[in-house]
Amino acid sequence: MAGSSYGLEFRITTFGESHGKAIGVIVDGVTPGLELSPEDIQPHLARRRPGQSSITTPRDETDSVEILSGVFEGKTTGTPITLVVFNQDQRSRDYSEIMAKFRPGHADATYLTKYGLRDYRGSGRASGRETIGRVAAGAIALKLLAQKGITITAYTRRAAGVECKTIDFDVIEQNPVRAADADAAAEMVRRIEKLAEEGNSTGGIVECVVQGMPVGLGEPVFDKLDAEIAKAMLSLGAVKGIEFGAGFAAADMTGVEHNDEIAADGHLTNNAGGILGGISSGEDLTFRIAVKPPASIKAEQKTVDVEGRETTISTHGRHDPIICPRIVPVVESMAAIAVLDLLKRHAALLA
Amino acid sequence: MAGSSYGLEFRITTFGESHGKAIGVIVDGVTPGLELSPEDIQPHLARRRPGQSSITTPRDETDSVEILSGVFEGKTTGTPITLVVFNQDQRSRDYSEIMAKFRPGHADATYLTKYGLRDYRGSGRASGRETIGRVAAGAIALKLLAQKGITITAYTRRAAGVECKTIDFDVIEQNPVRAADADAAAEMVRRIEKLAEEGNSTGGIVECVVQGMPVGLGEPVFDKLDAEIAKAMLSLGAVKGIEFGAGFAAADMTGVEHNDEIAADGHLTNNAGGILGGISSGEDLTFRIAVKPPASIKAEQKTVDVEGRETTISTHGRHDPIICPRIVPVVESMAAIAVLDLLKRHAALLA
Amino acid sequence: MAGSSYGLEFRITTFGESHGKAIGVIVDGVTPGLELSPEDIQPHLARRRPGQSSITTPRDETDSVEILSGVFEGKTTGTPITLVVFNQDQRSRDYSEIMAKFRPGHADATYLTKYGLRDYRGSGRASGRETIGRVAAGAIALKLLAQKGITITAYTRRAAGVECKTIDFDVIEQNPVRAADADAAAEMVRRIEKLAEEGNSTGGIVECVVQGMPVGLGEPVFDKLDAEIAKAMLSLGAVKGIEFGAGFAAADMTGVEHNDEIAADGHLTNNAGGILGGISSGEDLTFRIAVKPPASIKAEQKTVDVEGRETTISTHGRHDPIICPRIVPVVESMAAIAVLDLLKRHAALLA
Amino acid sequence: MAGSSYGLEFRITTFGESHGKAIGVIVDGVTPGLELSPEDIQPHLARRRPGQSSITTPRDETDSVEILSGVFEGKTTGTPITLVVFNQDQRSRDYSEIMAKFRPGHADATYLTKYGLRDYRGSGRASGRETIGRVAAGAIALKLLAQKGITITAYTRRAAGVECKTIDFDVIEQNPVRAADADAAAEMVRRIEKLAEEGNSTGGIVECVVQGMPVGLGEPVFDKLDAEIAKAMLSLGAVKGIEFGAGFAAADMTGVEHNDEIAADGHLTNNAGGILGGISSGEDLTFRIAVKPPASIKAEQKTVDVEGRETTISTHGRHDPIICPRIVPVVESMAAIAVLDLLKRHAALLA
Repeated sequence: MAGSSYGLEFRITTFGESHGKAIGVIVDGVTPGLELSPEDIQPHLARRRPGQSSITTPRDETDSVEILSGVFEGKTTGTPITLVVFNQDQRSRDYSEIMAKFRPGHADATYLTKYGLRDYRGSGRASGRETIGRVAAGAIALKLLAQKGITITAYTRRAAGVECKTIDFDVIEQNPVRAADADAAAEMVRRIEKLAEEGNSTGGIVECVVQGMPVGLGEPVFDKLDAEIAKAMLSLGAVKGIEFGAGFAAADMTGVEHNDEIAADGHLTNNAGGILGGISSGEDLTFRIAVKPPASIKAEQKTVDVEGRETTISTHGRHDPIICPRIVPVVESMAAIAVLDLLKRHAALLA
Repeated sequence: MAGSSYGLEFRITTFGESHGKAIGVIVDGVTPGLELSPEDIQPHLARRRPGQSSITTPRDETDSVEILSGVFEGKTTGTPITLVVFNQDQRSRDYSEIMAKFRPGHADATYLTKYGLRDYRGSGRASGRETIGRVAAGAIALKLLAQKGITITAYTRRAAGVECKTIDFDVIEQNPVRAADADAAAEMVRRIEKLAEEGNSTGGIVECVVQGMPVGLGEPVFDKLDAEIAKAMLSLGAVKGIEFGAGFAAADMTGVEHNDEIAADGHLTNNAGGILGGISSGEDLTFRIAVKPPASIKAEQKTVDVEGRETTISTHGRHDPIICPRIVPVVESMAAIAVLDLLKRHAALLA
Repeated sequence: MAGSSYGLEFRITTFGESHGKAIGVIVDGVTPGLELSPEDIQPHLARRRPGQSSITTPRDETDSVEILSGVFEGKTTGTPITLVVFNQDQRSRDYSEIMAKFRPGHADATYLTKYGLRDYRGSGRASGRETIGRVAAGAIALKLLAQKGITITAYTRRAAGVECKTIDFDVIEQNPVRAADADAAAEMVRRIEKLAEEGNSTGGIVECVVQGMPVGLGEPVFDKLDAEIAKAMLSLGAVKGIEFGAGFAAADMTGVEHNDEIAADGHLTNNAGGILGGISSGEDLTFRIAVKPPASIKAEQKTVDVEGRETTISTHGRHDPIICPRIVPVVESMAAIAVLDLLKRHAALLA
Repeated sequence: MAGSSYGLEFRITTFGESHGKAIGVIVDGVTPGLELSPEDIQPHLARRRPGQSSITTPRDETDSVEILSGVFEGKTTGTPITLVVFNQDQRSRDYSEIMAKFRPGHADATYLTKYGLRDYRGSGRASGRETIGRVAAGAIALKLLAQKGITITAYTRRAAGVECKTIDFDVIEQNPVRAADADAAAEMVRRIEKLAEEGNSTGGIVECVVQGMPVGLGEPVFDKLDAEIAKAMLSLGAVKGIEFGAGFAAADMTGVEHNDEIAADGHLTNNAGGILGGISSGEDLTFRIAVKPPASIKAEQKTVDVEGRETTISTHGRHDPIICPRIVPVVESMAAIAVLDLLKRHAALLA
């Protein structure tokens, strides 16, 4: 099976290339009777789109979503919902360098080898614009989960070497890095702007917390909650790692330190990140992802051309110096889709 | 769908509980014509089984595999292969404490809530014995991959706070931790034995390298190579995180540092871990997993009983003080299954 | 899983309601490098669309297809291909009777009960217009199969009680019933026109022949060639039965009569319809489907309203008196998708 | 994906060859808490096994089922249930003729071509013994459905050219053909015994009725109730066709005749067979399958050997002269699995 779908009972299938006619998603398995309009989706896309601040690309992409199917008289009908964003910006550019050379850190050569040809306009399907469909579908999942008391919050935990000292959900949308610590955010911005001026970029860590998780979600032994979340997150182009609860720190802990002791009102700690045996424990589901620095940088780098001859390349254009702030809504969306899918699968098991 | 299957074109479905009659796996999609006998599988199970050394549980489990179907005259027939290990050790024990109390760090409460009842004998399906089916199936995948020049090597990279200074594949099977550095291994053993004496346990990091990867494996945008490997690894009970290539270190890197520059004979570095755009690049696929300390420890811990009353528990019996050495063959197996599955899916795309 | 997708390695996901904004399909798994333009698809849609003749509905639906993704510089890229037909005819109508009453033979009540609400405009998702996506995707499958020497031909075998006496592929597109016998077709038309004048409709039988089948397609024991074809055909709204080769006649045959004897150059007969043990034998794959008469008729019929009160209904508007001629391209499309999917799955098995 | 699994939320994966070590099934997605023991399954296997009467093969196969996993203290745990029947009869036979020649009506050549080799012992995986796993899994599905008031009854409707004149469920298990009409059954037996003496065999039609169907099962547009049932039935080796409700007779009906008019207490007729728009209507689900005559007959037939040379073959041994009576429990089982799977999928949609 080609890989354009995720989820079983809440299933998304995305399509579209960066500079093609349109980008979108079919969402199958949406609970019928949910009130849904573009206004439910557009705010999530707004958080994802470029041009939001000094540290995102100044490209102007409106990304206005249309609902093509599955909604009637303002409610979901239980049939597939198609959400589409028509690309405004398809103007012809000079792609001669991208056509001729492989950009370091990009999927140019792997796409060409795998498929025998590639859509080199704006990275084609390997572009970050591919996540538009995920965010649009995620908006539906988030709305359905919210009705069940489940809320999802992601934020930049670390960027450009600066770590949040405190976690305050209220400040996330008030700084351009979407960090959970206003002071740290200010320092992050300073460093990111400086790197951007130098034609460089930086990575970071995004943390996600799911609150209100019911006990029992996750399907051992392969479709465990953490396994599904891990797949969802690693399917994002910029993500190079994930950890749950104590995560990699658990590698240096002893059993006495790592085991979460239990009291009458819950666990005393949450090193497990809300998952035991691959099933939600009722504690907050917490995980962090490693976000690599954007590969598109002005600095000159060694590479080869399509003939295999050594050369150099410098990527110009309007690119993000950091991916974290714009991946935050994507992380929330994918987490919502994974959790809702498992919630529906659990209902099927019990039926 | 319940979660007992992994893979699409090379698909495994596992079954069995720790103390039930048998544990095993059906492997569907095995290329016909492969020579296969229990001798191909048994050595892999031997690496996984307990009782191997001073730092694994002294339980004696023979774990002798039988082939029930799918092989005729010594060759695979293309029909489903069933591999089964009958449990020798089903003797009645005193499960009264495990029945009555929830063990910290275990899946006792989550299983009970999810399913409404649980098999408390040896953790039932949440036991590490569940991985027998994975390793048996993995032996087939490893043999098929080896014929294509793809080899997979996992080893303990870090344990009890000790990191390998060098990576030497030749020493892995010569020390009980399966570490890739003989000196580090000696120190690891000392620390692990001490923790074991104290009734405690420790975590570690296992690294895996896949050599000989063809370019082009991975199915964007959801079933990328890293996404599939991540799901496979996080489906293992003890794994709390995964990172590819530079991994979490990428979060603190700049684009200039992280991008792997390209020369005529390949990439100059491998921060990407052999994956670009979710597709294998031809460089070695490398990833590391965080392995938590075993939850079963003698040290007394706070918990509640099934009535919700606070109490304490101390887990006696013969348990592993560290999971790393025994998870090594499981990691190789799951990596092999994921890679082979994607290899077959790529063939389908091109057909 | 909701049911909007068919196929695994060549996988279609359809969307859209009869009177919604658009109807379409995502095709995932299309072999990269295939030349593809709307001109490859439009002729197939033209054979499916209304207004073709005296015995199809005079509704004028242009059904002009657009390719939104997956094709670059005239070739498929291996990424998902989105094909969409925007509905021209969304004008407001008087749906008060359809809203208030359940039409006999329609899915009105079952949709309402299943989903809790329904899109009553032109039957919504239960409309025959839903097959537009299938035909558009089928055009791609047919083109890929043709390159491998596999051709698919469907035709009306029986209609309004008239059976083809001869089978001549050349006349199929030259008569409005798409019958394979010109004389029978003339009589069919006479009878159908008379029924249409009376406000009535009729059923028929469509036969399909796949020539050039390679040996070995079909995945026992559940995804056999006949099982996959049967599912594909019974997923069409008007189809009430399917039979392969001798089909139901086999029920009255003896083994001596039914077994296809074998000579050096193939089977002497083809009672098996080209399938043995669920796998293609190399003989022509042949099957027939029973097509029910259209449920939308002017004749007055007993029914109940949404309150459960007994009443009568008479369906006015421009409806087909027979489905056979317009279902012919749909049958060819679904057969092509099923065969191509199994061809790709077989390639995966051998990889 | 290879084809050894059926169903999504109630999913069976079967394994085993006719003369291999064992035949069985893993059932995943079984609702936890169901009381289950071999005694629930054995009676269904007894109805399927040979040696029941004068018109089934006299082979003595005990087919004693064991539960290897998924049941604890007499109840299903929600984890995969493995059911296995160890083959008693693996004695070495003279397979030289079957090895050397292709039997008409058998899958010998298609298996050999598809897989490059074949298990020629008793037809290997293409044997009717493969259905043991289906019946064992079906017993669980039937028990779960019975708790919801859904019952499934299959019977021979026609055999050796004799049709049931009446349908009386009470006589089905009282005659060796499992016909629903005692008088017809007597005549069927006479004809079948005569054919058997002549070294010949005969086909028939099996009808199945599902009573107590809730409204709303079936997932349009591809996984409709009829599509799923059709796939399940055509996956059985001997089945060459299926029809629902009026079935092929609908091809000769007009809309006035075929539409089921509706009264306050339900439909006045059931030409639709309990399905509208692919969704259960609440009326009885009814379908019929065409069962071909067994291919293994003593009469001499033309064939070729594996070198392609023309020759003749006559199949000796203990074979069934008709498949209908033994396929009846298999049909009930597959219908139960399909219905239960859709019931669980519907629950997931609404969750």
